[in-house]
Amino acid sequence: MKNVLEEISAVMKEGSFDDSPETRYIFRSDTTRFTGTPDVVVNVRTEKEVSGIVKIAARHGLAVIARGAGTGMSGGAVPIKGGIVINFEEMNRIIRIDRRKKIAFVEPGVVTDKLRAEAEKLGLYYPPDPSSSAVSTIGGNFAENAGGLHCVKYGVTARYVKGFKFVDASGTIHECGIYDEENTFPGAFVMIGSEGTLGIVTEIAIELIDKPPLHETFITYHTTLLNAINTVAKIKTTGVDPAVMELIDKDALYAAVQYSKVDLPENTEAVLIIMLDSYLLPDLLERSILLENILSLMKVKQYRKAESEDEEKAFWDLRKAVSSAIKRISNDKLNEDITVPVSGMYTLIEFTRSVAEKYALRIVVYGHAGDGNLHVNILFDRNNATELNNARLASEEVFKKAVELGGNISGEHGIGLAKKNFLSIQYSKNEIAFMKKIKKAFDPDNILNPDKIFNITKG
Amino acid sequence: MKNVLEEISAVMKEGSFDDSPETRYIFRSDTTRFTGTPDVVVNVRTEKEVSGIVKIAARHGLAVIARGAGTGMSGGAVPIKGGIVINFEEMNRIIRIDRRKKIAFVEPGVVTDKLRAEAEKLGLYYPPDPSSSAVSTIGGNFAENAGGLHCVKYGVTARYVKGFKFVDASGTIHECGIYDEENTFPGAFVMIGSEGTLGIVTEIAIELIDKPPLHETFITYHTTLLNAINTVAKIKTTGVDPAVMELIDKDALYAAVQYSKVDLPENTEAVLIIMLDSYLLPDLLERSILLENILSLMKVKQYRKAESEDEEKAFWDLRKAVSSAIKRISNDKLNEDITVPVSGMYTLIEFTRSVAEKYALRIVVYGHAGDGNLHVNILFDRNNATELNNARLASEEVFKKAVELGGNISGEHGIGLAKKNFLSIQYSKNEIAFMKKIKKAFDPDNILNPDKIFNITKG
Repeated sequence: MKNVLEEISAVMKEGSFDDSPETRYIFRSDTTRFTGTPDVVVNVRTEKEVSGIVKIAARHGLAVIARGAGTGMSGGAVPIKGGIVINFEEMNRIIRIDRRKKIAFVEPGVVTDKLRAEAEKLGLYYPPDPSSSAVSTIGGNFAENAGGLHCVKYGVTARYVKGFKFVDASGTIHECGIYDEENTFPGAFVMIGSEGTLGIVTEIAIELIDKPPLHETFITYHTTLLNAINTVAKIKTTGVDPAVMELIDKDALYAAVQYSKVDLPENTEAVLIIMLDSYLLPDLLERSILLENILSLMKVKQYRKAESEDEEKAFWDLRKAVSSAIKRISNDKLNEDITVPVSGMYTLIEFTRSVAEKYALRIVVYGHAGDGNLHVNILFDRNNATELNNARLASEEVFKKAVELGGNISGEHGIGLAKKNFLSIQYSKNEIAFMKKIKKAFDPDNILNPDKIFNITKG
Repeated sequence: MKNVLEEISAVMKEGSFDDSPETRYIFRSDTTRFTGTPDVVVNVRTEKEVSGIVKIAARHGLAVIARGAGTGMSGGAVPIKGGIVINFEEMNRIIRIDRRKKIAFVEPGVVTDKLRAEAEKLGLYYPPDPSSSAVSTIGGNFAENAGGLHCVKYGVTARYVKGFKFVDASGTIHECGIYDEENTFPGAFVMIGSEGTLGIVTEIAIELIDKPPLHETFITYHTTLLNAINTVAKIKTTGVDPAVMELIDKDALYAAVQYSKVDLPENTEAVLIIMLDSYLLPDLLERSILLENILSLMKVKQYRKAESEDEEKAFWDLRKAVSSAIKRISNDKLNEDITVPVSGMYTLIEFTRSVAEKYALRIVVYGHAGDGNLHVNILFDRNNATELNNARLASEEVFKKAVELGGNISGEHGIGLAKKNFLSIQYSKNEIAFMKKIKKAFDPDNILNPDKIFNITKG
């Protein structure tokens, strides 16, 4: 390591890298329980520094792990094999927003909400909003292809990436997309969502859209989960086109409601929070009336349209309270963000109930129902070996069911370390072999975030 | 082949495949002089048929070449190794246009102008407009990542592809992008612009934009080429944001003008055709005045704003006449669509003049000056061996110069067969090795449009 540190000091400014035990300890994990201690953490500020660091790692065969804010849910930024962590928190400038072309040029360390706020000042809007958006970075969102509440209408991160600059496994700098449109082959866009295993992004061109100035928010109360899910399915087949459609199932609901100002009608078993947005009032009214007609057609017990900003805020606060309310019930949880087609949502949630019974665990479900991305939270006590083991078995069963129903084992959190053992549930041997070939083409010596998604064997 | 034909007849309807000498002859080339005779041509109509055909090809190790309208400029659809040509001309439905989401779902055989016309009926607009757009297909545009006149403002095909369905080299059907947003790894978007070498597209989701209702068209007359190019460069640094900015250099100009209604002022050495479009009148007026100020600042000898549709049509007719006017001067031409940064355009064109002198050839230049995509036409007589050889040497020199100036050897026509020998001018050994690894990952047995872009050696 002495040589490595000397080489790093030739590339980085003094004080911008750190191999103290304290720093190495801090950067050993993300929000998961996976850990791995890096040899050194470098706080980059320029593309040139990133390139220099990767060249050093390549020379020494060291792992190199790009890290944003460390809010990942699958261990993506955990330096499981040690090596160099490239911390992007200080490489966080919004370089420029082209108002006319509606494109923001940003460094990877820009916090998601910062970009959203700066865009908003110009009447623009960046839709992806992972729940970590107050802290998480665009670079991390890129690596995990992050989603959020608004994906049902506006799609995930990949939809907004118009181009990027990146450093490959040899340390060479490249440009793609709108940075060099004519030179797209061999299509670096494969890097979006590849969890830092194919290259390290140093600048991203993000498309923004005009901010819809109008919106309306509804909360619907359902006496059965099935009715809530059927309502989601019905809404999806019409022109209501909600910007948000969140489902909170009863366990999550009753855990969260005590921290919110929402009054639940008796016998409520599930809630939907539905937001419509629009550029034009007649359009909003039309879709709003359509939604109310559907709710009445579906015999939804009761619903409310927010009549004030305060009331609207109460709806959102209920949704936001879910995650921390669950933490109060149980110290340990596996939060498995699977996806299923809307048509399979009911079967999936019912299945989680039978699994909960089988393994004597509580399982709490909520999430982005509009696009079938459900957060299945399996609660357990880590100090109880049986519960820990049962939680793992339960999550494997849930993954299998999701794939059987035509879904994915990860909606937006990524595979990382958390789901790599389950990759073969979703992908065939051939598909995984194919992914490994892509990995080898980009990173022949397996130094870029190694052992994430899958392990690469030498040769 | 007898077995192959039998297997094909199990997959395809009667009369939808043909191995007659006439058909095989027709499908032996595109607009280039490269030829290769296919063993059989299948006229597919469904994804399932495409999958079935690729499975047959994979089983027998036969080449399989997807073909749109055959308007390619680089030999991309030429079955150089024989095999099966999949003709998409009958798989040409616009499945649906989602007006609200502004997305068209189309089959690959849809003619580009058909999509543009159908979009326009809904007030929408598909900007990419290769000059073959009356005949070329979206599938072909996808494979070559085609551009056109409007790319300076609106970008090339890749910018509009939101997702697609495709058949891989084993015949398996996949979906990506908005068809399955959560499942993007391993990022099939690498396929856009890969010239049919990585997979065969069977449906494409194309983003449309609102049609700008307003536009204005200018023609500018320059007494020197340098003045025309400096004007382009100046306009690029301002907010004029032209939708089209075409350059016609003197040789091309004087060849074309006789087929048009445009009167050239004396001493005109170059012409620009500039179109501005907008959603709002004040915006259009503002940019239009800004343009006129720049033209006066640059001391442009003379210019006209089209005062009527007839006059505007005359401008476009002049531009359109260029290509066929050149054909009247010379039977044979190498049309090399290189790109250079706008700052290198003058050097490049001057260089073509010195090359023309050196090899005693005529070289005529025109093209999409706004994004530095120039069509360098080297005129020669194929029956004169010296001229043919000199034309090849001249084009290699032009490629080298373009790359030296920071450009690309192909702006929009692709590499195919026409430029594969020149790939190493633009890409390093490592980059080409990387592309080959990507190719091998997608197509391990090298059956998808083999020997295009580069040759793959076995093993």
